[in-house]
Amino acid sequence: MSAAPTRPSLTPLFEPRAIAVYGASSDPTKIGGRPLDFLKSSGFDGPLYPINPKSAQIQGLPSFPTVSAVPGPVDLAIVAVPAPGVLGALEDCVAKGVRGAVVLSSGFAEVGGDGVQWQAGITALARRSGLRVVGPNCMGLINVRRRLLGTFTPSAAGFGLVPGRISLVSQSGAFGGYCLSLIRQRGLGLNLWVTTGNQSDVDFADCVDHFARDDGTQVIVGYLEAATDRQRLFDALALARENGKRVVVMKVGRSEAGAQAAASHTASLAGSDAVYDGVFRQFGVLRARSIDELFDVAYAASQPVPVPQGRRTGLLTVSGGVGALMADVADDCALDVAPMPEDAQRKLKAILPFCGPRNPVDMTAQLVNDLSLFERNFELMLEAGRYDVIVAFLSSVGQVVELSSKLLEQLKKVLQRFPDRAVIVSALASPEVRKLFETAGVVLFDEPTRAVRAAAALVHYGEQARAGARQSPPTLPAGALPPPARAVNEVEAKAVLASAGIAVVRERVAADEAAALRAARELGYPVVLKIASADIAHKSEIGGVIVGLADEAQVREAYATLMERARTRAPRARLEGVVVAQMAGKGVETILGVARDPVFGAVVMFGVGGIFVEAFKDVAFRVAPFGVEQARAMIAEVKGRVLLAGVRGQPAADEEALAQAITALSVYAAAHAEAIESIDINPLVVLPKGRGVLALDALIVPRAG
Amino acid sequence: MSAAPTRPSLTPLFEPRAIAVYGASSDPTKIGGRPLDFLKSSGFDGPLYPINPKSAQIQGLPSFPTVSAVPGPVDLAIVAVPAPGVLGALEDCVAKGVRGAVVLSSGFAEVGGDGVQWQAGITALARRSGLRVVGPNCMGLINVRRRLLGTFTPSAAGFGLVPGRISLVSQSGAFGGYCLSLIRQRGLGLNLWVTTGNQSDVDFADCVDHFARDDGTQVIVGYLEAATDRQRLFDALALARENGKRVVVMKVGRSEAGAQAAASHTASLAGSDAVYDGVFRQFGVLRARSIDELFDVAYAASQPVPVPQGRRTGLLTVSGGVGALMADVADDCALDVAPMPEDAQRKLKAILPFCGPRNPVDMTAQLVNDLSLFERNFELMLEAGRYDVIVAFLSSVGQVVELSSKLLEQLKKVLQRFPDRAVIVSALASPEVRKLFETAGVVLFDEPTRAVRAAAALVHYGEQARAGARQSPPTLPAGALPPPARAVNEVEAKAVLASAGIAVVRERVAADEAAALRAARELGYPVVLKIASADIAHKSEIGGVIVGLADEAQVREAYATLMERARTRAPRARLEGVVVAQMAGKGVETILGVARDPVFGAVVMFGVGGIFVEAFKDVAFRVAPFGVEQARAMIAEVKGRVLLAGVRGQPAADEEALAQAITALSVYAAAHAEAIESIDINPLVVLPKGRGVLALDALIVPRAG
Repeated sequence: MSAAPTRPSLTPLFEPRAIAVYGASSDPTKIGGRPLDFLKSSGFDGPLYPINPKSAQIQGLPSFPTVSAVPGPVDLAIVAVPAPGVLGALEDCVAKGVRGAVVLSSGFAEVGGDGVQWQAGITALARRSGLRVVGPNCMGLINVRRRLLGTFTPSAAGFGLVPGRISLVSQSGAFGGYCLSLIRQRGLGLNLWVTTGNQSDVDFADCVDHFARDDGTQVIVGYLEAATDRQRLFDALALARENGKRVVVMKVGRSEAGAQAAASHTASLAGSDAVYDGVFRQFGVLRARSIDELFDVAYAASQPVPVPQGRRTGLLTVSGGVGALMADVADDCALDVAPMPEDAQRKLKAILPFCGPRNPVDMTAQLVNDLSLFERNFELMLEAGRYDVIVAFLSSVGQVVELSSKLLEQLKKVLQRFPDRAVIVSALASPEVRKLFETAGVVLFDEPTRAVRAAAALVHYGEQARAGARQSPPTLPAGALPPPARAVNEVEAKAVLASAGIAVVRERVAADEAAALRAARELGYPVVLKIASADIAHKSEIGGVIVGLADEAQVREAYATLMERARTRAPRARLEGVVVAQMAGKGVETILGVARDPVFGAVVMFGVGGIFVEAFKDVAFRVAPFGVEQARAMIAEVKGRVLLAGVRGQPAADEEALAQAITALSVYAAAHAEAIESIDINPLVVLPKGRGVLALDALIVPRAG
Repeated sequence: MSAAPTRPSLTPLFEPRAIAVYGASSDPTKIGGRPLDFLKSSGFDGPLYPINPKSAQIQGLPSFPTVSAVPGPVDLAIVAVPAPGVLGALEDCVAKGVRGAVVLSSGFAEVGGDGVQWQAGITALARRSGLRVVGPNCMGLINVRRRLLGTFTPSAAGFGLVPGRISLVSQSGAFGGYCLSLIRQRGLGLNLWVTTGNQSDVDFADCVDHFARDDGTQVIVGYLEAATDRQRLFDALALARENGKRVVVMKVGRSEAGAQAAASHTASLAGSDAVYDGVFRQFGVLRARSIDELFDVAYAASQPVPVPQGRRTGLLTVSGGVGALMADVADDCALDVAPMPEDAQRKLKAILPFCGPRNPVDMTAQLVNDLSLFERNFELMLEAGRYDVIVAFLSSVGQVVELSSKLLEQLKKVLQRFPDRAVIVSALASPEVRKLFETAGVVLFDEPTRAVRAAAALVHYGEQARAGARQSPPTLPAGALPPPARAVNEVEAKAVLASAGIAVVRERVAADEAAALRAARELGYPVVLKIASADIAHKSEIGGVIVGLADEAQVREAYATLMERARTRAPRARLEGVVVAQMAGKGVETILGVARDPVFGAVVMFGVGGIFVEAFKDVAFRVAPFGVEQARAMIAEVKGRVLLAGVRGQPAADEEALAQAITALSVYAAAHAEAIESIDINPLVVLPKGRGVLALDALIVPRAG
């Protein structure tokens, strides 16, 4: 993936020295009055210049007819004039040397008509001049540290924001405004906030890229409706990962109804949702399924808590019931609730006879009577239990400051000895106690299942980040054939795939019965016979495959049957005879494919065969190309993987060979992305461990030139 | 199911006129001091009598050496004396005519030793005298309306409780205390609260029964670790359903680690978790998976909102993004996000040109500019959209009292015309606005996905309650055979099932080759041959089944093969020859079974065959017997149902015949519960619609006498 051409930095937007407000109004409830009112009352630390030819003074500040009349330099313009006047205002800005603009006005592409042209004008001006434009039809932006409220969302009224390490980008203004209210309500620390609206210039990827470079940002929260530019999004996400920023995203439109709602809202083309899932996993992006989860994860990730090195999870509780509940949820989240070693369990019992020593470790309400128990239990769990992360449920302990402070002192002492372990506490806490915990780097949740889910998010983030860092794809084999330029039969398709490094079944095309018998002798019985025709994509649907032919008589009969079926069931297909193939050994049938996603280009799909894919849509996607780590992750993702592990006494399948085949296909798909519409390998049989895989059937659809 | 013997009412426990505190202490932080302190400061409206032979006065009240010395009547005793003295105190209580006791003391069955005997003594006294005893080893009970704090949980300090329509029973004291803190924090209205501890007398079912009879209770919240008495639990849940109480339960121990944690905590035998799932569904009990969800559902169900009549769900939003998110979650919850009719969509567009009119209906931020839009949109959704429930996302609107009041007036006006529809609003609201909404009977959530999940809970509650009300099981067929008293071969097992109303495959036992050939001729080719032996439970595992035998030669060969396999692979099994069976038509293989659950007795299991059951544990349980509605619900519950609907061009299967077969099995299992250890029908083939089902193989294990 080559780097996209660099665009000018967004720094002038977020770090302006001086701000002009175009269309500034004396009425602080108007769209042109509110940002000025907000900026004045929040205490932004630079000069503010109302731009309005009709008044000499606005909201107590001297006003100017255009930005060019402003005496000093201006970095950022907030534009709230009616749509027809926006382009003119921006041209003034360029002339003045303004480097960033936020266009709050609506009436552009979202309403159609002239608006489409006006918006195209903004885009062209931005590209030509280097002016960075947020919007139009957006809610603006915020820099909390600078007390910069470049927005008209009522959610920003009264400021009420705490500086912190979370930065947020939302494609939707309404969603962004709601999130801002939530952030205030929860008291989360915020750094930068921006809504991108119609994305005439600055888009979601630009903002992620900016946040990824921003020292003040540790967590990037994104609300994505539809990605537009594959390469720039990938680059931005890769940069975020490289710089250790934790990205958590909400992307709506998973369901059919949801997808329609999103599409009608953005009028932009959304890729398949399962593809987004794959992209997020590929780039170590956590995907939230609710707004609570979005900010739970953002909160945990914004605290100075280490990223867990593995899934080993210790649960500590003062209530056996809540311990069991946390264990249930940890199991749902694929955490490893491994038991304490036997001798450590004995030690715990010696400390506290009525405790549950296994995992969850139940300290019972005794904790309140003897606080030193906590330190000793906790230390034993970290040392002997070797847990990567501990979630501790302390009930209402956090409502008493004195008790909490003592607990916290013990916790800090132990953590100094285990600085690489993450600790998340669940307790009902007063605001005072909450601050105490957070200052000490301990993440605190009211509700225990939310604490477990946040822990799981950190664990999965760590895994994806580590897998992502090792994901260089292998090189294309030297002798790889180009994709066919026209429809070809399955034998030719498999020859192409074999050249790309994917093992295929041994087979011959036989033009007549005699040739079929010859081929069967050479391959060895039993064999499979299939109709050979580039015009029949799904042979089995017309009964075009007959398996398990044991001798010459059965081959003769099958040959006649297939010819008859082809004539009656696909009368217009051009026949090339039959394919005679060796019978593959018994294995697990899987499906491997390549498709063109409208946003992400060549994507690779994997699923375990048959009903799982068709009835449950149980498939995993990744963007091509990728390394074998991603292929392994794809296998681990699908529910059908249980079949590969071997059920009903079947041997375990060769997952490693499968991962290699998926990887090889991704490399081939990426190398020839422009020439391939789709590839289907169905089935790819995964043989028992050590015996590899075999593509039994394949279809390559070249891209219409 | 016959009614359990009636136990004396719990009313004296929850509605005492006067209370004695045994072991009352002058130190209000001690277990014997705290309840007295709480009762005094909360303002309980009856006389309080400290019982303590060592002081004449305790906490400013005259103290008595025993309860018999108290001048007036006493209904409730709170007992906090050390464990060895508890039984004596309770005997005093009985002598005095006290009718209820709460034993807070610990040191009983949970610690073993003498404690086990002491607890047995309490149980015996309770049964003998009619005294109702809560505990020992519990956190006590609360009646909010009476300001009765019969507890020592620190969560009750300062009272801080609002009277309401939720009553809670928790087997765990720590969990109960935590919930109490949460209830206070969320400001939920509470009626009764009780923790049952060791359940020497009063158990979970008793409390559900009491709440089910209590006029002040609309919602029963339960925390269940393990059920003990099947019949009393069923009776209590049935009564709750009958009386229109909404029951929401948390039962932990879904995961292996969770189950171990729960077992070590309660030291009582827990039934399989999937069985609990079935029981809850059967009795219309909602099961929560997190504490947030437990109280979200309890809150929604406690409001005067009608139970939705169906799954048709309208989503109204001021943010397209949040609308899409709600649609995603509604889809996850199996709600029906049906689109608005075309003409209604046109009307919406006429009212508000830039709205999204489909469903979600996106009113955009225009709502704030023209409030009358809300009423008109809302009415159109109820009238033309015919939604059973509407979830409306109003963002931060709830933070402005004036705006909210106006919205609420409109909402109330419309709802008067549609009193059977449920409305749930999601908005960030000030406490003042929240109260406004709740007073008007509108349920309010901060977070939109929680609003959708609560709506789904109400919808599913309604469905289960309606299905539950119609669930009388059919009668056992007159000619039904009794279960075999010893192990029998599959042919005899199927004969029993056939007599119970379950269609079985036509087949014969053949003792030798000649008989096998005769049977095949009579049944008609093709046939199946299977080893006949009562000693081989899983024939296919030793290759004991050969299908698709087309002629005499093949039957001869198969006969010889089976005899050889039986000799070598199951040398100790007694052979009865072979079973010759007709080849069943093509259908979907399912599994039907009966098992004895340690708590719930005879339970019926259903799953779609093969991999779904073995790899995914994709099965549904119900307690036998039940009506066909429950059987239909079981089919709807399993993921494998997609196979029954017909995939890959297969015809839809005869689900109705399947439901009848499941029902018939449940009736038979219940009628002979004491004689059956287990029944397996595997496979039960479901033929295409109208052609019924066929049991191909069956195993009945009689209960060891």
